[in-house]
Amino acid sequence: LRSTVRMRGRARTPKHPIQHMLLHALDAWVRDATVLTDLERVRGALYAGAGAGGATVVGEAFSVFSNGAVTGVLVLAQSHLSIHTWPEFALVNIDLLSYGDVSGDEVLRVICERLGAERAELTRIRRAVAGP
Amino acid sequence: LRSTVRMRGRARTPKHPIQHMLLHALDAWVRDATVLTDLERVRGALYAGAGAGGATVVGEAFSVFSNGAVTGVLVLAQSHLSIHTWPEFALVNIDLLSYGDVSGDEVLRVICERLGAERAELTRIRRAVAGP
Repeated sequence: LRSTVRMRGRARTPKHPIQHMLLHALDAWVRDATVLTDLERVRGALYAGAGAGGATVVGEAFSVFSNGAVTGVLVLAQSHLSIHTWPEFALVNIDLLSYGDVSGDEVLRVICERLGAERAELTRIRRAVAGP
Repeated sequence: LRSTVRMRGRARTPKHPIQHMLLHALDAWVRDATVLTDLERVRGALYAGAGAGGATVVGEAFSVFSNGAVTGVLVLAQSHLSIHTWPEFALVNIDLLSYGDVSGDEVLRVICERLGAERAELTRIRRAVAGP
């Protein structure tokens, strides 16, 4: 397993084995909905969160809709981080799928801070990383 | 709400209101793990699934790791669809976040069929699409 981990991402510490793959599903409401139509601010928040949590970004795709809503995804060496903004509800849906030594809590904390989140609901799901 | 839906995606039918935003988290094991290092086959499966389920693709990002594993994301007008392959476990993690008239079950069914999945575990989470 160890060599596989290294091939896909950063070196792991023994207390964060590859088997711990988690999906973090966060819905958060922000103070000022105008940030949710600001592509560079939303994009910057994702990169800041990924960096703070120890994730390595290897690709990205963003799209802006006609009402200003932003959908964006960072492809990570440790999986992916996505955001969907709903300016009309002052809402963001954020999803982080990650394993290994990524700190999901830190990723989400920094994004929420950057976007001025006032309230959030988080669900975590343990995902499979094993044979059939 | 109706105009917002139209701005972000396709026209909606009354029986699929915007409030029904779902995250589908699927882990599936395939018969032949060699498909999981085949970027074009994995990419093709995602596009086929998105199309079959009525989703509109507006962007993509894919990455191939040194062990051949593929991570890819389609940005959808209705949110996103991602895949992470684990050839060493014959495993894929698929995530679909969508709302409106996308048929998540059909998206996942077609991807599983294209990749030759033999077993799958699905979790669905209702996500927020409303004010604070």
